[in-house]
Amino acid sequence: MTRLTLAIDAMGGDFGPCVTVPASLQALAANSQLHLLLVGDPDAISTSLAKADSAICARLQIIAAESVIASDVRPSQAIRNSRGSSMRIALEMVKEGKAEACISAGNTGALMGLAKLLLKPLDGIERPALMTVLPNQQQGRTVVLDLGANVDSDSTMLVQFAVMGAVMAEDLLAIANPRVALLNIGQEESKGLNTIRHAAETLRGLADINYIGYVEGNDLLTGKTDVLVCDGFVGNVTLKTMEGVVRMFLSLLKSEGGGGKRAWWMKMLGRWLQKRLSRRFVHLNPDQYNGACLLGLRGTVIKSHGAANQRAFTVAIQQAEQAVQRQVSERIALRLEAVLPKSD
Amino acid sequence: MTRLTLAIDAMGGDFGPCVTVPASLQALAANSQLHLLLVGDPDAISTSLAKADSAICARLQIIAAESVIASDVRPSQAIRNSRGSSMRIALEMVKEGKAEACISAGNTGALMGLAKLLLKPLDGIERPALMTVLPNQQQGRTVVLDLGANVDSDSTMLVQFAVMGAVMAEDLLAIANPRVALLNIGQEESKGLNTIRHAAETLRGLADINYIGYVEGNDLLTGKTDVLVCDGFVGNVTLKTMEGVVRMFLSLLKSEGGGGKRAWWMKMLGRWLQKRLSRRFVHLNPDQYNGACLLGLRGTVIKSHGAANQRAFTVAIQQAEQAVQRQVSERIALRLEAVLPKSD
Repeated sequence: MTRLTLAIDAMGGDFGPCVTVPASLQALAANSQLHLLLVGDPDAISTSLAKADSAICARLQIIAAESVIASDVRPSQAIRNSRGSSMRIALEMVKEGKAEACISAGNTGALMGLAKLLLKPLDGIERPALMTVLPNQQQGRTVVLDLGANVDSDSTMLVQFAVMGAVMAEDLLAIANPRVALLNIGQEESKGLNTIRHAAETLRGLADINYIGYVEGNDLLTGKTDVLVCDGFVGNVTLKTMEGVVRMFLSLLKSEGGGGKRAWWMKMLGRWLQKRLSRRFVHLNPDQYNGACLLGLRGTVIKSHGAANQRAFTVAIQQAEQAVQRQVSERIALRLEAVLPKSD
Repeated sequence: MTRLTLAIDAMGGDFGPCVTVPASLQALAANSQLHLLLVGDPDAISTSLAKADSAICARLQIIAAESVIASDVRPSQAIRNSRGSSMRIALEMVKEGKAEACISAGNTGALMGLAKLLLKPLDGIERPALMTVLPNQQQGRTVVLDLGANVDSDSTMLVQFAVMGAVMAEDLLAIANPRVALLNIGQEESKGLNTIRHAAETLRGLADINYIGYVEGNDLLTGKTDVLVCDGFVGNVTLKTMEGVVRMFLSLLKSEGGGGKRAWWMKMLGRWLQKRLSRRFVHLNPDQYNGACLLGLRGTVIKSHGAANQRAFTVAIQQAEQAVQRQVSERIALRLEAVLPKSD
């Protein structure tokens, strides 16, 4: 592996440098070829670096930024006032070729808008989409998009998402001729919103896409499809619903091993079983797949959960490493021209 | 309790009389005041009744229907050709006062359209909504609507759903001043679709509604709100996603107790633990709360899952019994006038 430089928006997310800096150190420790540019308030970043290993710090550079984009500000307003912000400077590092990808846990709408403004969409793409890869019950993985880069999507956008998702499944997951489905409220052709039905019509006509029809919410984790396409609102709500249910189960399992008035051997047994089961379910823990890839740009941008903890933010950095190594952006660009109908 | 008569669309759902008839017998056995009208093909119903107890059958009447509305037909077409169908006749029983409620596992769109046509919406309601009550982590329950009666909803409809949901939480769950929230992709006021933001504005102005703002998908089961309002597309996908994840966990737990090459004591232990955990999670099993109530009509209509098994369809019948006993439809009608703004 060759040297790799990534830019981190160190101020983004609910916890800022308290999470992003330890996560950066963890990612650096795990990959000796990795270099990181930490963009943000130098004082805050330095405080979090105080006890860090000096050999690891040698592969880390602080880039000063004057401001932070708040998570509750409207994207349009955030973009207008973005000069000097940690998120914008991190993206500029990518634009200027100083970093190969950027990772931020900040305001999703602002990241989407700024990334589009600075890095530009690929030819044939109107709006980028947020994509993640979920584990499924068939021991495989499913590409899901859009997870909220866009609030609203028309049928043309859904078709573009489908094409990008298919490329990801082929190139990232090595699935030949991946199955592509649209998320809908029924499997019959007549079901759902007009935009979805129109997208289905177009997808059926694309020879390069293995379109298999509609799937419903209960098939999110069953492995019925390799690529699942939906608009950003539905994708965001669906993913968060899934995460909420998984977290509830994991916490119920955890409490199963706990105290109470049980005999010592019951407690031991409980803890042993809790560990066993947690191992079986650990791949479903949302922290394990944090980091959604903003697809469709001339550059690699990874969006982390705002509430990500250290482990989860480290996973997001590693997603960026992978995306760069697999040349995700370049591969999508190459395939788009071949797959998308010329009339679009 | 006084005598109660319900009409069952015996032909609806994926399994028709094979599920609806045994479930009807189970519901009759559980409630000696219950009488059922089974609407459908007399031969098919009689076959499923062959071994039934004659005392129970005395409280059951078969009403002949010539046809069945298929689950994959467009609602508009289904309604045009609905005369003589089991779903329509079951609804007519309610309209004519021969039954106090109707239960169907058939085509959702057709049920919604026919119910609106035959039973008429309450004053102040444009379109009925499908509602269910989910268990939450606070040992409480949450009213969720719309679950797919409408594919698309404008802000006025969302406000009406919120009012109906609040009435349900107060009257059915006995929650004083229930918290009402809109499902969105962020908690900040600026987030989400225009329709949701407009509905939020109206809800903030309604003195009778305890509107608490937006909640996200991960809060579906946390008990953060007593009433959760969303459009039918999002509600349907969200509920099905939740159900898919819960079923996956329950099946993983089940397999934990299974065979393999483990020692006998490991298998025993596994089965013991699986039972213990299943008991803890059983209230989350989707079969436990099957039966969504179609709110906003001059009559009680319960929609069962199309794929419901006998136990789940029995639960749907019991939902209808409750809705009638609690006078859900009448209570909503009484409250709507007081709560909804006159200008609407």
